[in-house]
Amino acid sequence: MGPRRNIRLTLEYDGTRYHGWQRQKNALSIQAVIEQAIARITGEDTVRLTGSGRTDAGVHALGQVANFITRSTVPRRAFIHGLNSLLPVDIAVLRAEEVPLSFHARYAALAKTYRYRILNRQVRSPLAHTRAWWISHALDAAAMEEAARALPGEHDFTAFRAAGGRPGHAVRRVREAIWRVQPTGWLDFTITANGFLRGMVRSLVGTMVEIGRGKFPPEHLGEVLQKRDRALAGPTAPPQGLFLVEVEY
Amino acid sequence: MGPRRNIRLTLEYDGTRYHGWQRQKNALSIQAVIEQAIARITGEDTVRLTGSGRTDAGVHALGQVANFITRSTVPRRAFIHGLNSLLPVDIAVLRAEEVPLSFHARYAALAKTYRYRILNRQVRSPLAHTRAWWISHALDAAAMEEAARALPGEHDFTAFRAAGGRPGHAVRRVREAIWRVQPTGWLDFTITANGFLRGMVRSLVGTMVEIGRGKFPPEHLGEVLQKRDRALAGPTAPPQGLFLVEVEY
Repeated sequence: MGPRRNIRLTLEYDGTRYHGWQRQKNALSIQAVIEQAIARITGEDTVRLTGSGRTDAGVHALGQVANFITRSTVPRRAFIHGLNSLLPVDIAVLRAEEVPLSFHARYAALAKTYRYRILNRQVRSPLAHTRAWWISHALDAAAMEEAARALPGEHDFTAFRAAGGRPGHAVRRVREAIWRVQPTGWLDFTITANGFLRGMVRSLVGTMVEIGRGKFPPEHLGEVLQKRDRALAGPTAPPQGLFLVEVEY
Repeated sequence: MGPRRNIRLTLEYDGTRYHGWQRQKNALSIQAVIEQAIARITGEDTVRLTGSGRTDAGVHALGQVANFITRSTVPRRAFIHGLNSLLPVDIAVLRAEEVPLSFHARYAALAKTYRYRILNRQVRSPLAHTRAWWISHALDAAAMEEAARALPGEHDFTAFRAAGGRPGHAVRRVREAIWRVQPTGWLDFTITANGFLRGMVRSLVGTMVEIGRGKFPPEHLGEVLQKRDRALAGPTAPPQGLFLVEVEY
């Protein structure tokens, strides 16, 4: 046993099999699976992993960040290769860094980037089944792009908060929010902000899809934002299209 | 029961769960699963589906083509939506067309395109686990690109034929063979030819990877081709990186 060390992990995962990031009784979570692997590497069974935030069941990550405190003297690199040999194929450690003890993956996060993927074509896709929201009716991508222009800047996102999320301050600053449209039917929405409310990206996407269907004009998104009324927002987009891309510190 | 009709299907599938395209006793095959669904739609239990070619266990398809003869009077569109409602999530019908009775998915194919995906980075990828060959040691992509320049044109591919494949004529005409290299570590090999021997793409990729590792110079691929000696080719690349992209008629 050595002095306390703070280890920061960057993680990729396929969320399909999991009931989300957060440890739960009687349900498989990404946090618990990684904690068990860390316990085996360090020999400490009380390790607690702090994520930058929770991801819901079925949501994926390309660059989730988490940290844990250990007294193990295991070399830093063993937290990459050792953990990857213990973890299931759908979770991997991309990087492991030793950081100051003061670092906290959630409180220290300055910005996060999420991507939401829609496949807009008539027929469902076996290869995108767990990785996109398949929408078979035509979408007006230009209207969705126009709607997204209301997002950059500081806003109160109360209207786009999932039921059951933590209450409190709902003001977030969005740095960038853009749709990338491909001729193959892929519509990818990428959003970077200093923080996200629970369910916020999926609620924004659900609302923009209603605009893409012609149910509302592009200005609707900005209006819902201003009115701060959850009842005006569209249905929540399904989880499998969502990817946590990056966390900035 | 009406007159005989020939239905051509274009198929997408995730090959992970299957023992390949071809019907087998005691093993799940893509061909058998689709035949069972066609039998339910048409009421004919003797339907036989002819693929443009077999794909091996774990190989995927974005545009496999197959045809079957039926006397069912089911409308053409029901072969898309009806089959897709019966098929498992990892197989889908993208298009269904009624074609002349003389059409045969294998004999009428003029060209096929395959793509092979390599992810070259230090750490394995949960999201690419069943969709790419993960290679952790550095690859010289420029050497692999140079090697691939030996492929266009007409050659005897005896050296790149899998053991156990059908014997016979091994001359094939390659129209295009290129690597697309991305800064994120993705290396995608796309090859179009008038036909492929069993295991040919995976054997070519395995040989180019040996060139990328520096085991042989780029000229090695052209030399193996000329010598027609299977013992000189590299190991066969694993199946999960391979996608049948398109079949031309």
